[in-house]
Order: sequence, then C-alpha cells, then structure tokens
Amino acid sequence: MFENVRIVLVNTSHPGNIGSVARAMKTMGLYKLYLVSPKLFPHDKANELASGALDVLGQAIVVETLEEAIADCHVVVGTSTRSRTIPWPLLTPRTCAEQIMAQPKEVNAAIVFGREQTGLTNEELHRCHFHVSIPSNPDYSSLNIAAAVQVLTYELRVASMAHPEISTWDYELANNEALEGLYEHLERVLVQLEFLNPKAPRQLMTRLKRLFNRTQLDVMEMNILRGILGAVEKRIK
Amino acid sequence: MFENVRIVLVNTSHPGNIGSVARAMKTMGLYKLYLVSPKLFPHDKANELASGALDVLGQAIVVETLEEAIADCHVVVGTSTRSRTIPWPLLTPRTCAEQIMAQPKEVNAAIVFGREQTGLTNEELHRCHFHVSIPSNPDYSSLNIAAAVQVLTYELRVASMAHPEISTWDYELANNEALEGLYEHLERVLVQLEFLNPKAPRQLMTRLKRLFNRTQLDVMEMNILRGILGAVEKRIK
Repeated sequence: MFENVRIVLVNTSHPGNIGSVARAMKTMGLYKLYLVSPKLFPHDKANELASGALDVLGQAIVVETLEEAIADCHVVVGTSTRSRTIPWPLLTPRTCAEQIMAQPKEVNAAIVFGREQTGLTNEELHRCHFHVSIPSNPDYSSLNIAAAVQVLTYELRVASMAHPEISTWDYELANNEALEGLYEHLERVLVQLEFLNPKAPRQLMTRLKRLFNRTQLDVMEMNILRGILGAVEKRIK
Repeated sequence: MFENVRIVLVNTSHPGNIGSVARAMKTMGLYKLYLVSPKLFPHDKANELASGALDVLGQAIVVETLEEAIADCHVVVGTSTRSRTIPWPLLTPRTCAEQIMAQPKEVNAAIVFGREQTGLTNEELHRCHFHVSIPSNPDYSSLNIAAAVQVLTYELRVASMAHPEISTWDYELANNEALEGLYEHLERVLVQLEFLNPKAPRQLMTRLKRLFNRTQLDVMEMNILRGILGAVEKRIK
C-alpha cells in the first residue's frame, strides 16, 4: 500500500534507534527505509530492537548523502521542531499524511528524519518541499526518533483508510533530481544577469527554492521553465 | 491540560519500557502514570529511557491491582489488539481522544495498557468501558508499548487543540492585482525572448498562470520574480 513512501534517516547515531524505526514502520505497513551515513549499521542492537521487522532492516538502502536518498522523489517532507529564519510550508502529521496519500501512485514520497540530538541542518531542511512538525508539549518536545516515525506512519495508515479522492493532473510531477537541475540552471542564469551576486547571495536562491519546492512542478512546467532559462542564456551571450 | 487523564500500565516486564512510556507521555503533556504491579520499578533502565521525563517517573503511583488504579475514574479505555468473544464498544485512537477531551473537567479518564507479550486479560478488558485499537499492518501489528502510548497521547494532544496550528509566514501574500501585473510582465518578456509566439501562444501562459496561482506567492517572492524579469529585459534590449 505504501510502496512509494520511504522513510529516510540522516546520520543516526544509535543503531538501536534504526531497529526501533524499522519496527514502527512495519507495524503501519511501511517497508522502505533509507539510511544516510548511519554511524553503525548493520548492528546487533538494531536487529534486537527491530523485533519482527528484520526484513525492513535487511532491505534498507544505505547511501552517503541525503541527495541520493531523495533523488527520485517527488514529494519530500522534512521533520522539524525548530522555527527557521525563513518559514517553510509547514504541515501537521495529519495534513502531511493526507497530502501524501492523495498523490497518484507513481509519485515517490520521502519523510526525512534528522540526527537524534540536532535534527536536520538548515541546508537539509531547504532540500525538503515541506516541513512537518508533531504537536508536542512546549515544556518537553523531545520525541524519540522511533516515536516520531510511529506517529507519522500511523497518520499515513489512517489516511490510507479514508479513501481520499485522487486528484487528477495532466503530467507527472517532476522529481527531485530535475528540481536540483532547475536550481543550478536558474542560479547560473541569475549570476550571468548580475541579479545574483555570488559573493553576497543573501537568501535569494533559498527563497526561490522554497517557492518552486512547494509548487510541486510537473514535468511540462519544468520543461517550460528550463526552456525560458535557455532562451535567456542565448540572448545574453 | 490533561490533569484528569492517566496512563495505566499493567504488569510491565521491562523497566526500560516504563521509562519510554514516561517520555512519550511527557512529550504530549501527560504526567499521570499508574503502574499496576510492575516487575521491576524503580530501576536504572527506566530512568535512562525516561530521558527528560524523570519527573513523570518520580510521581508515578504504584498499585497492586487494576481495580485500584481506576477506582476514581469515570471513563476507562483498554487497549486491545485481539478481537474478543463478546464484542465491546470499540474506539479508534481518534474517537477515543475526542471522547475523552469532550468530557467535563471533573471526569477522570484512564487509558490502560497490558503486558508486553500478552496484553490485557479478558477480565481486565471487561473492566474497561471502551476498547481502543490502533490501526496496524495485519501482517505485523506488534507496536512497542511506548509506541502505542505515543500514538494515543498524540491523538489526545491533537484533540485538545481547539485551534489547529497555523503556520507562520514572513511576508503577506501577493494579491491578485500583483499577480496580473506579473503575468503581463512575464508575457512581454517571453515575447521579447521569442519563447512565446503571440500568433501561436498555445497553452504556455495558461500553464504558467496555473503554476504561480497555486503557489500562493508572497510579496517578497513577487518582488524577486519582477526583479528577475526586469534584469532580463535590461540585457536583451
């Protein structure tokens, strides 16, 4: 049911947490786990805490960078507790689950979890299309990572039972690799236009990324934007 | 907020689980923990896994029987995964939370969790007014006890929030007049770039409008886009 939804853990310190996450995932019917540079994996402690979810651990995919883990994803949601300098589209666990379950089947979605102590970096959070924050006690909001995975995957399961209407669209969504290509192209052109000063970039690219990330570009729109950038480059050379 | 809601754990085997439950509770703002004949408590492992929720452990009330733990309660909900010989009023985590939060303040509510391996006995379940079952993977429904507490207390917290979180943004949204200005400017530049042929416009502007309409541009983003268009115009003249 959740073939196209993956859980991504970035730089997890404790292998036990990886095992607990696998267990939490499987109880809700999720099997796709990506591990970005885990400190210790595979590990006995991970196996022990995975309990009956050893299969999830066994097929976990280990990669070096977050970029690799989400390259073929169309919807990327980062978990965040801190408020950021630039606000990002913020979902609740429920709206996050509804949004993911409302996508057509071909859409790959990722929910990204950061380090136990420090979460995701700003740069990592800016790679995400949306952020999700679990409501919590303002005096103590420190959910264990497996507990956070449990809540978000529970909401996915509940949303999957609701049979939400699938919105129809004419083209498939552009994936994250295509988005990264757009941003590189856009940045190059803005520098050539002298609109962006590489020595004082300020928040320009961050704001543009936030804009297009939340828009959920389809492949036709992506082609149009790349086409416009190409046409600009041709004229200013 | 949840002064009248308690979590009751029956015959917990692993003290680490008691600690994890305390942590899960506190993250959602619950502080009242009742322990019915725990195997080992207090215990270092419980303290370790409680992390920042030592206060919840410290004020936990240890009793001999479930009867004592729920004596002064008005609503008692038992967690159950098995279907029972006699059907019982069965709640989902969401309806359970809504039902508890809809009670007057004087009403004491308890959510009761059974043993790690075997759950609650039939006799214990029959002491409960309602049962609650967390939706799960039919192939593997074995939630860790702290994970189950996390899901149910999360739903309590969501139900308690009369006004759902509004995400904050740094700039106000651009109005429709500003959007129309953007589209005119964009169209003018695309014609100058010879990317748009006014005699055969096809769906180009329609697609671009759909894109920016759904994005909900803020005024800063609007300024950036107008700035980029201005910079392009300057260079191609």
